[in-house]
Amino acid sequence: MLPIQAVSWSPDRSALCIIDQRLLPGAEIVRELRALDDVIEAIRTLSVRGAPAIGVAAAIGLAVALEAAATSDAHRRVLLPEFAARLVASRPTAVNLAWAVNRMLARAATVGDGPLLAALRDEADAILTEDIAMCDAIGGHGMALIPEDACVLTHCNAGALATAGIGTALAPVYAAHAAGRRVHVYADETRPLRQGARLTAWELHRAGIRVTVLPDGAAASLLRSGAIDLVIVGADRIAANGDFANKIGTYSVALAAHTHRVPFYVAAPWSTIDPDTPIGAAIEIEHRDATELGELPAGVSAWNPAFDVTPHSLVTGYITDRGVMHPPFTSPAFL
Amino acid sequence: MLPIQAVSWSPDRSALCIIDQRLLPGAEIVRELRALDDVIEAIRTLSVRGAPAIGVAAAIGLAVALEAAATSDAHRRVLLPEFAARLVASRPTAVNLAWAVNRMLARAATVGDGPLLAALRDEADAILTEDIAMCDAIGGHGMALIPEDACVLTHCNAGALATAGIGTALAPVYAAHAAGRRVHVYADETRPLRQGARLTAWELHRAGIRVTVLPDGAAASLLRSGAIDLVIVGADRIAANGDFANKIGTYSVALAAHTHRVPFYVAAPWSTIDPDTPIGAAIEIEHRDATELGELPAGVSAWNPAFDVTPHSLVTGYITDRGVMHPPFTSPAFL
Repeated sequence: MLPIQAVSWSPDRSALCIIDQRLLPGAEIVRELRALDDVIEAIRTLSVRGAPAIGVAAAIGLAVALEAAATSDAHRRVLLPEFAARLVASRPTAVNLAWAVNRMLARAATVGDGPLLAALRDEADAILTEDIAMCDAIGGHGMALIPEDACVLTHCNAGALATAGIGTALAPVYAAHAAGRRVHVYADETRPLRQGARLTAWELHRAGIRVTVLPDGAAASLLRSGAIDLVIVGADRIAANGDFANKIGTYSVALAAHTHRVPFYVAAPWSTIDPDTPIGAAIEIEHRDATELGELPAGVSAWNPAFDVTPHSLVTGYITDRGVMHPPFTSPAFL
Repeated sequence: MLPIQAVSWSPDRSALCIIDQRLLPGAEIVRELRALDDVIEAIRTLSVRGAPAIGVAAAIGLAVALEAAATSDAHRRVLLPEFAARLVASRPTAVNLAWAVNRMLARAATVGDGPLLAALRDEADAILTEDIAMCDAIGGHGMALIPEDACVLTHCNAGALATAGIGTALAPVYAAHAAGRRVHVYADETRPLRQGARLTAWELHRAGIRVTVLPDGAAASLLRSGAIDLVIVGADRIAANGDFANKIGTYSVALAAHTHRVPFYVAAPWSTIDPDTPIGAAIEIEHRDATELGELPAGVSAWNPAFDVTPHSLVTGYITDRGVMHPPFTSPAFL
């Protein structure tokens, strides 16, 4: 039972359905997308966001757009490479996007002149189902860390809105809640885009889980207060040594948790671990526009990195779909 | 030469002049206030803010309001207790407000049936002049810490807008700039009220000092990058052992500076040290309304402390008008 479906098929499987996250929490609007331009626009404008959710949206979106754009598989076969390339280009830095589209192309290659649309629908279904299962596995492994009456601090949104399932960082919370445990989540506002205040707070409150928002700068005081049992955050990339990139502000929370001996967990699909990135310093950080910070005095510049890197020494454990793991992830046991 | 005058007499000394800080950085509007209700409204609505600036505004405001409200000193003597009490009540937690008003009352008591208005104007003048001198002294003692081409990180606004002079945390920056040194200030946005992005950025840019705004959550990464030579923040109260309260988020910055061995200074008037508060844990923290955080999903609560406490162990030194000092401030040398 999903708390919400951020990305899914329409009931008749003719459209990609997404919750328009630009409008949250003010309005909950589900959009049915069939045309390639609309799917690309949704990804580009962050109507759908979160690496796993973007991957699933691209897979379903590719299938429904090809169905709508042509009346024969022969014609769809001609359109496929262009559609795939345009989807991949809609957000170039999203690894899951390219991964999902490449998986669709590989599946298409296996059918030769056979039924293309059916194969693409089947592959998109597999990507969707695997994503839901990945979230459930993270929830199952992580819920043991969440005691009755737990207070959990999180940063940004690595919840159901970021996946097709119950999320990554929030999966253990949803799993504990489903098992009848009381959980209270503290959500960092997460400047500049306020994903914690807008998205994490919205989806948890909607699921009947108690949630309190705090300014990012208040997290250190909250951790000192003793109110928090554990921190769980998501990850955009995990290096082989366990250093990980996540939304800007994560590193500050990790430093404060370490200072006050509050367990600090990263929750992410195993696929987030990049064995080709040896350490965190090798992760390139995207810098974004000053306009994201809101009104500034004319002529004043901004320093606005989208992510930061937290060293593995501050991390208690990595909650993955394979279990709660510890680095180095290049160990032979992981290969 | 002041970069701006946040609070001052009007040229004919008939009014209190303030820059309306609610409108910054969009518009720079100087208001001339004569009526008591207008002075109180300006303090209550944060048109004038910052403990030293509020004290000076209350002193000048009391003098001009009494001048406008009556035509004789005899009548003013009758009005004085009520005017003073109403001013003090306009922001009950501001220590400097009560301190300045009490100083005005004490001066009034010294003149007996003598010329009241002249005495009150003279006392307000003294409070204004002493505040400007206090800022200059902090600047003079602190500028030695600022090398040529320095990068300084600050949090919130403890600048010229918060005092009648060149500020407290920013005083060393203004002093170094006046001495011809290049300084680049990084200003934390300072959620929820954005004093760094709105006020610190505005006043430094206006003074020709390079300034870059960053989200609060990015400060730890900036400190790790090696770009910052030193951190200077203000303080709302300093305990006898050196623990101090300042705007929420200060503690996070101090933790990151300590981790990355970046010198971390507190700049404040000596009067901010409260020998009756032995340690930081004894400082009561004001909690403010959830509405300050902006739009939240319906039914979601907020944890919004206005201040946090930073332990003295994270502080390199205390830049005061008496010099750069070190705790404990109960040492006989300080009494």
